[in-house]
Amino acid sequence: MVANGQNKDMEEIQKVMSLQEIAWNEGNIEQFMDGYWKSDSLMVIGKNGIKYGWQTTLDNYRVSYPDKTAMGKLNFEILKLEVNGNSAYILGKWKLIRNEDTPNGYFTLYWKKIEGKWVITIDHTS
Amino acid sequence: MVANGQNKDMEEIQKVMSLQEIAWNEGNIEQFMDGYWKSDSLMVIGKNGIKYGWQTTLDNYRVSYPDKTAMGKLNFEILKLEVNGNSAYILGKWKLIRNEDTPNGYFTLYWKKIEGKWVITIDHTS
Repeated sequence: MVANGQNKDMEEIQKVMSLQEIAWNEGNIEQFMDGYWKSDSLMVIGKNGIKYGWQTTLDNYRVSYPDKTAMGKLNFEILKLEVNGNSAYILGKWKLIRNEDTPNGYFTLYWKKIEGKWVITIDHTS
Repeated sequence: MVANGQNKDMEEIQKVMSLQEIAWNEGNIEQFMDGYWKSDSLMVIGKNGIKYGWQTTLDNYRVSYPDKTAMGKLNFEILKLEVNGNSAYILGKWKLIRNEDTPNGYFTLYWKKIEGKWVITIDHTS
């Protein structure tokens, strides 16, 4: 039962990430943001340090990626995914395929199942 | 009982990090490495991508920090620490106080309690 429950949670989390890729590649940043905790306590650590909050994160994405050319095609590769109760941890690789460059790197995500839905609560991307 | 168990685990993890700071500030990188999973499966993500293994990590630290001047004084600040069973997650800030500069950034750590001892199994530092 525990194993089955974990498998179901892992599938749900993988689905959230797949939907994020699809949304990004359709140029829909707000839909992409559906994978994140819709809270002022969301934490996103990137090359500019730590930023707080869902709305701030959305606004920052819109500035950094003003159109579909800038957004390119996003690809996630999950290297590690573990579920522990209502928390989960992911280590993965990201890649952005664009006309002029292919930025890429790693991310570690801390997930919580909140009101029955898995969401990213801390995103550390480098 | 669960809460007490978690508190004990949280104290143990915080102690590992305090011992790491002390070891680093004594110039003892091998002792510092005692906080890491002594395994070829240890993963460390830094500015040069992902590196695997305890020994490789130790060797890399020795190259990057050849003496106590290069090592400086390390300071950790824990922003988030959560224990979930035999796993734990930390988000924190690091700072290296040196004569010539003060490099700093964030880290997210994925911990496991292995054979009764809490160790870092994935370190993502930026």
